[in-house]
Amino acid sequence: MRPRTSWQHREMLLHIDHVGIACRSLDAAIERYVSVFGLAVVSQEVNAEQGVREAMLATSSGSSYVQLLEPLGDDTPVGKFLARRGEGMHHVGYAVADVTAALAEIAGTGVRLIDSRPRHGSMGASIAFLHPGDLGGVLTELVQPTR
Amino acid sequence: MRPRTSWQHREMLLHIDHVGIACRSLDAAIERYVSVFGLAVVSQEVNAEQGVREAMLATSSGSSYVQLLEPLGDDTPVGKFLARRGEGMHHVGYAVADVTAALAEIAGTGVRLIDSRPRHGSMGASIAFLHPGDLGGVLTELVQPTR
Repeated sequence: MRPRTSWQHREMLLHIDHVGIACRSLDAAIERYVSVFGLAVVSQEVNAEQGVREAMLATSSGSSYVQLLEPLGDDTPVGKFLARRGEGMHHVGYAVADVTAALAEIAGTGVRLIDSRPRHGSMGASIAFLHPGDLGGVLTELVQPTR
Repeated sequence: MRPRTSWQHREMLLHIDHVGIACRSLDAAIERYVSVFGLAVVSQEVNAEQGVREAMLATSSGSSYVQLLEPLGDDTPVGKFLARRGEGMHHVGYAVADVTAALAEIAGTGVRLIDSRPRHGSMGASIAFLHPGDLGGVLTELVQPTR
């Protein structure tokens, strides 16, 4: 991969926005994170495009989240992940200022894009996924929050 | 698990401090994160107790990190993880103000502690791990940074 050292590139990943956690029961997972850590549920939605019911739980800073993901069916990406690996961490999402610009920079390094254009994510964010096969097995998401 | 709703509990997890990523070659993984995302290496150390060579790479906020972990041998926790699951996300670390107090609160909810007392983590932090078996398959670390 070609090194990229532009100023914009060095500022690309602002912070860790969330970890996405695959679970069999969203309700049980929410109950666990609320009771053990006192996290607050700030959003719950169904994303039919991604095949998940999901919840966002905020850390006290309000800048990073635990995202809990229950598949809508066995034949969805998260459903297949659960069958293959069981419950656990599914992906990591990094906040970026401009997801379209970030995708263009990253495409230039040779990493495959799962989403060549941003799509709709949690809480109105614009998001895009990068291929784990080019990132050491880590499914990586870029998140341009509206929040 | 018993609900815990004290004020302290609700403030426990400040933000996501880092994601820990298991890799076969630390040098190759560093090269990837620097070239693709422009992250800066802020620390590199050997933690013999945990059986890893590791690097911390900072996001531009300076408040959250990518932690890359190469096992010192096959018979270490990260070495066994790689043999079982391959490269990928190994754990998530949350910043806390007081790791000892957080452990006491969490122990009260019934979650098993891997570390009942804090130990030495990256960059001088006090850390403790919680059992993934009680947290939906997620190996979870509490981090009280010195930074």
